[in-house]
Amino acid sequence: MTLAEKVAQLSSIWGVDPDVGDMAPMLREALAAGQRFEDLVRDGLGQLTRPFGTDPVEPAAGLRALAERQRQVVAANRFGIPAQVHEECLTGLAAWQATAYPNPLCWAATFDPDLVERMAARIGTTMRGLGVHQGLAPVLDVVRDLRWGRVEETMGEDPFLVGLLGSAYVRGLESTGVVATLKHFAGYSASRAARNHAPVALGPRELADVILPPFEMALRAGARSVMNSYTDTDGVPAAADRALLTTLLRDTYGFEGTVVADYFSIAFLESLHHVAEDLEEAARLALEAGIDVELPSINAYGGPLLAAVAAGLVDEKLVDRALLRVLRQKCELGLLDPGWAPAEAGTGSDPILDLDPPEARALALEVARRSVVLLANEGGALPLAPGARLAVVGPRADTPEAMLGCYSFPMHVLVHHPGTEPGLEIRTVREALAETFEVTSALGCPVLGGSDADITEAVAVATDADVCVVVLGDRAGLFGNGTSGEGCDVADLRLPGRQEELLEALLATGTPVVAVLLVGRPYDLTRQVDRLAALVCGFFPGEEGATAVADVLAGRVAPTGRLPVSFPGPGSTQPSTYLASTLGQRSEVSSVDPTPLFAFGHGLSYAAATWGDAAASGSTWATDGTCELVVPLVGHPEQATSEVVQVYLHDRASSVVRPVQQLIAAARVDLAAGERTEVRFELHADLTSFTGRDLVRLVEPGAVELRVGASSADIRSVVELRLTGSVREVGHDRVLEPAVTVVRG
Amino acid sequence: MTLAEKVAQLSSIWGVDPDVGDMAPMLREALAAGQRFEDLVRDGLGQLTRPFGTDPVEPAAGLRALAERQRQVVAANRFGIPAQVHEECLTGLAAWQATAYPNPLCWAATFDPDLVERMAARIGTTMRGLGVHQGLAPVLDVVRDLRWGRVEETMGEDPFLVGLLGSAYVRGLESTGVVATLKHFAGYSASRAARNHAPVALGPRELADVILPPFEMALRAGARSVMNSYTDTDGVPAAADRALLTTLLRDTYGFEGTVVADYFSIAFLESLHHVAEDLEEAARLALEAGIDVELPSINAYGGPLLAAVAAGLVDEKLVDRALLRVLRQKCELGLLDPGWAPAEAGTGSDPILDLDPPEARALALEVARRSVVLLANEGGALPLAPGARLAVVGPRADTPEAMLGCYSFPMHVLVHHPGTEPGLEIRTVREALAETFEVTSALGCPVLGGSDADITEAVAVATDADVCVVVLGDRAGLFGNGTSGEGCDVADLRLPGRQEELLEALLATGTPVVAVLLVGRPYDLTRQVDRLAALVCGFFPGEEGATAVADVLAGRVAPTGRLPVSFPGPGSTQPSTYLASTLGQRSEVSSVDPTPLFAFGHGLSYAAATWGDAAASGSTWATDGTCELVVPLVGHPEQATSEVVQVYLHDRASSVVRPVQQLIAAARVDLAAGERTEVRFELHADLTSFTGRDLVRLVEPGAVELRVGASSADIRSVVELRLTGSVREVGHDRVLEPAVTVVRG
Repeated sequence: MTLAEKVAQLSSIWGVDPDVGDMAPMLREALAAGQRFEDLVRDGLGQLTRPFGTDPVEPAAGLRALAERQRQVVAANRFGIPAQVHEECLTGLAAWQATAYPNPLCWAATFDPDLVERMAARIGTTMRGLGVHQGLAPVLDVVRDLRWGRVEETMGEDPFLVGLLGSAYVRGLESTGVVATLKHFAGYSASRAARNHAPVALGPRELADVILPPFEMALRAGARSVMNSYTDTDGVPAAADRALLTTLLRDTYGFEGTVVADYFSIAFLESLHHVAEDLEEAARLALEAGIDVELPSINAYGGPLLAAVAAGLVDEKLVDRALLRVLRQKCELGLLDPGWAPAEAGTGSDPILDLDPPEARALALEVARRSVVLLANEGGALPLAPGARLAVVGPRADTPEAMLGCYSFPMHVLVHHPGTEPGLEIRTVREALAETFEVTSALGCPVLGGSDADITEAVAVATDADVCVVVLGDRAGLFGNGTSGEGCDVADLRLPGRQEELLEALLATGTPVVAVLLVGRPYDLTRQVDRLAALVCGFFPGEEGATAVADVLAGRVAPTGRLPVSFPGPGSTQPSTYLASTLGQRSEVSSVDPTPLFAFGHGLSYAAATWGDAAASGSTWATDGTCELVVPLVGHPEQATSEVVQVYLHDRASSVVRPVQQLIAAARVDLAAGERTEVRFELHADLTSFTGRDLVRLVEPGAVELRVGASSADIRSVVELRLTGSVREVGHDRVLEPAVTVVRG
Repeated sequence: MTLAEKVAQLSSIWGVDPDVGDMAPMLREALAAGQRFEDLVRDGLGQLTRPFGTDPVEPAAGLRALAERQRQVVAANRFGIPAQVHEECLTGLAAWQATAYPNPLCWAATFDPDLVERMAARIGTTMRGLGVHQGLAPVLDVVRDLRWGRVEETMGEDPFLVGLLGSAYVRGLESTGVVATLKHFAGYSASRAARNHAPVALGPRELADVILPPFEMALRAGARSVMNSYTDTDGVPAAADRALLTTLLRDTYGFEGTVVADYFSIAFLESLHHVAEDLEEAARLALEAGIDVELPSINAYGGPLLAAVAAGLVDEKLVDRALLRVLRQKCELGLLDPGWAPAEAGTGSDPILDLDPPEARALALEVARRSVVLLANEGGALPLAPGARLAVVGPRADTPEAMLGCYSFPMHVLVHHPGTEPGLEIRTVREALAETFEVTSALGCPVLGGSDADITEAVAVATDADVCVVVLGDRAGLFGNGTSGEGCDVADLRLPGRQEELLEALLATGTPVVAVLLVGRPYDLTRQVDRLAALVCGFFPGEEGATAVADVLAGRVAPTGRLPVSFPGPGSTQPSTYLASTLGQRSEVSSVDPTPLFAFGHGLSYAAATWGDAAASGSTWATDGTCELVVPLVGHPEQATSEVVQVYLHDRASSVVRPVQQLIAAARVDLAAGERTEVRFELHADLTSFTGRDLVRLVEPGAVELRVGASSADIRSVVELRLTGSVREVGHDRVLEPAVTVVRG
């Protein structure tokens, strides 16, 4: 291969049809300037960017256009190598008419890796059918500050939970042959004041113990691609961080897949981070660091990289290194097979063109149903009494967009293609409740802004009802065009717009108020929570979310979700998560109390199980051994229910400061009425490890507690153990997950 | 010496008179249990803690009590070694009747190191006269988050400014023989969400480039003691951080003085950080790390340390190492001189007993006058017209405590000894204005809380006046007993209590409103600033602060202070300082805009000078060379004035992400009417250095700008230069300050 042919394999082009696609200016400009697409890909092409995900396109038409582009790519380059095709797929394939699954906060709330794995496999099947080879998910960022707009894309604030469900997603997606892409490596969620792309202040220990474990777990699950974080940590941009992308990822973790650039991030080394004088230097830094492929289009891995190699600034061996990874992956994907041909649909109603088949809808509903979190039900207002006359009000009560995060394609359509149909049937909470109950409704207020008259109307509707269900929340968007989503960071955690005012007005009616939150992040409900009849959180529950919420409100489905993120308490501030050491919690030396209103792991039931005392296999635990922890559960005598058994480690004293408690095991257990079970956790001592003084991961002897609870603030029993033996160094090959067995009967 | 005698020299006792002193329980309990003080110090005593600073005590009586204690200490130990006596002295000696100088934010606002040095020398003279050997100041923490309660104790958010004034303070205090103590080493100000003592997330580069430089400057100025930070950084408590307290401080910086523990911080290793199983281990960790002296009383450096040595857990050589440092310092202080005797007063009115002599008052006034910052004067409401009828209202208008921070002794009296006289004459703003103007007044509201009636009364008073001067702000306190001060952290930057409501009510009267802020931190004035007739910030200006503020309002003194901390803009969040890289500033990828309302360095004048274009000695600057920068200034044609010439470095591209601009030089220039001056800065290339990829400090070649301005947001001219030559490593011996010459005429 010539150098130009090599570099072309590291590049990408955004756009299949230049007439649609407001985000493919490079391609459109080139074509407008008289170049043909074939000219652009004469030397080959690494990746085609988002053929389905940019503009609403009929699946059949999209498939045809993509196949045509692939044929052009194959024909244009000497070796006949097609492009690898990638798409976003955070909540399902981000394409018109494709299933909009619940957001990752919902997956996390299920605490159910098997379910997430099935969902991801279904997503992969859809992608594979359309000739898409790589999906830019899952997001493994661990929430550090709730003000961040991308909280909605995460699986919450606990590294173990993020890793558990993130690796389930990876297994599911990769099982279909689609490459999973872990993002964003690493540190994105810890940006200053939670502003998108802002600098990250993080020491190596916090990086190793909080940010990296989900990536370690997901790599072990078989992810074949990693995407860099946009951010710089302590002054070093991830896109230019060889220690991160090569020394750690390749040499230590043994990763052999591809590292792809987050969109435009190589160019940002010059234009935003200012660590490169020009694009040549940006290309050099990124390639040296270990970014193999530039996305979404050519900025640096084209002319600038060629120039840098020609000038001797970049060793061509580094190009070869990246090329080898790219070609190896294309080979694995069958793209180098003789006779390869692009995906095509069969005639008639080829199932690959049905991007939202019934089984996908059913999965979306199952995830949504298992993710709804009952936060408060003091008055026992839920489930709603049969026959109750409901006022269903609030900005999120009667709009399909309430169900969707900013990476859901219908939301993308609403934001970028107003006037276009979202392409999916998505019911609203009002519609779903109206199937069971007599419902009146009013807006109350929009997500932002609104009028006094609208609030007055909602008050009138609520006054006349038995129960008022107010649906509050976010509108997901991009870069400020919303209250949650990429770039939609916030300065504080008050409900957006006039929603708190609306809530107060409804509470003043005297009608019991059930608040439903359809949100991308927790908000401050401290001033109202004691007066609410009940409080339910659905996050962004996807295309079947309204059904799921209505099912829970009506009592057809038990609420079984558990919070993957804490809700802020009165006067608390950000950043703050439950992973806090003693001085990170309430203390006598600060007037600011970060105690949450609803703690990590919290979620109520309609029919709780009875928890027995947890017991360990002994009182000691060898620093290289395993401890069996058994938690007995007895189902509610009359109703089926679910519990999430959460095991938190508390280390009495250690050589560095550690969180007071940290989740090391969890199991969701479905219980038939009266069913007796034992949940058995095989806990290897590696699960107690942490990064010590010398930045080596250690298991240290000493006293620990295993705190077994229904949430991080609702510990049901404590097992005291002594880790015995000598300090033990553990590496990347350590045990990352416990084995869990549920013994029934 | 026996081991017990050695360890005794590393310990301290809080309390001179056990009957006064609610903070000396150890001593009181011991005496109550029948022990004599002499028994407690049989083996000697390292330090006596705060003999004057705990309870209000007449200087003569305090001096006698201290002398008696010292005689007991000397008599009790075999070697006749007296104790070293330390006191707080942040805003002057923290003792009854001693001068309450302005808070450090005011020093910083003066940009006047000579003045701060004179003030510190005056403080040292007072301390020395009373037999105090060590002062626990200055605070060199660089503000990272305005929510922190201790912002008031700092010199703001810029490391160079903190270092410039901090080292001036050190020179002044040390010139009198009193040991200056640098605190808090290191990282305290970067605690999570600005909660006091909360964990710090900080990488080594930010530590080296932001947090440490003031310490490097102040050590070079001759500080002989260093106090650890309470916090842990990335899991390692400063009190147990050998890399910090020994490798960096001793081996790299060459420090030979003593490291003293912040109060109780060795015990906190066990009780709060949980890095020690017991006090023996806490003692071991602290001693190994490099803490020589435990303050304020014996927790670990007594029985626990003795036990640890006896058990072989601690090498006695480490005890010897600390002992040597303690004894060397006592020797330097003359405490080991033959015939040493404790300080005593002469008969009659010995000047050492006058802790607030006229020259100290004059200094306090001078600092206050030079520190008042005119933030806004759009309507030209200031100076006030002669004969104006003023309404002087607001919670801080008519109380002496408004002038004081939490480390000022009168404030301490108010907090801990209610009912006791503060011991100093401190005028209020109302009193000071009433000397010149016809004044009516009303409270409006207290700092926190208040009644509608009070607001109504203030509105009535304002309505009838020509101008309303509303004095808003903080009440300094400790651990929540105030709105600013140690432990008085806040969740957001809205004015405390109902003060914003009061301000709105006053603005609604139509009477021009001049707002005066007497605050420990900047607050959010964004909603009112455009309607204010003028806005003035005095921070906590000390015992003569009211006079200074009234002088500025009346136009007798020109406002010449410049902000050492940014005031937050609309919707901005914390943490945020002006030291932000491109992505730390306003960007298209985040909806949250951190642009401040008033930028670092901002401050208006009544009579501005004319700035000429800055010029450099050439267009290149050798990476090992010096650049001369000349800034011409011409005084206001009719009035004397002051300008603060600020030089910011902008580095176009560098190997790590850097702040867009950073202060590297500043000069306050007093100008007679019409006076022509040139300010000449000799800028060594070391001033452009930063900590590179490999954590080595570098000067890098490439394009830079010197931005010369009246604030960080008011750049008057830009000089473009190219640093030439090779990359150069620089060490701790680098140039830290420019030479500045003001050429007049």
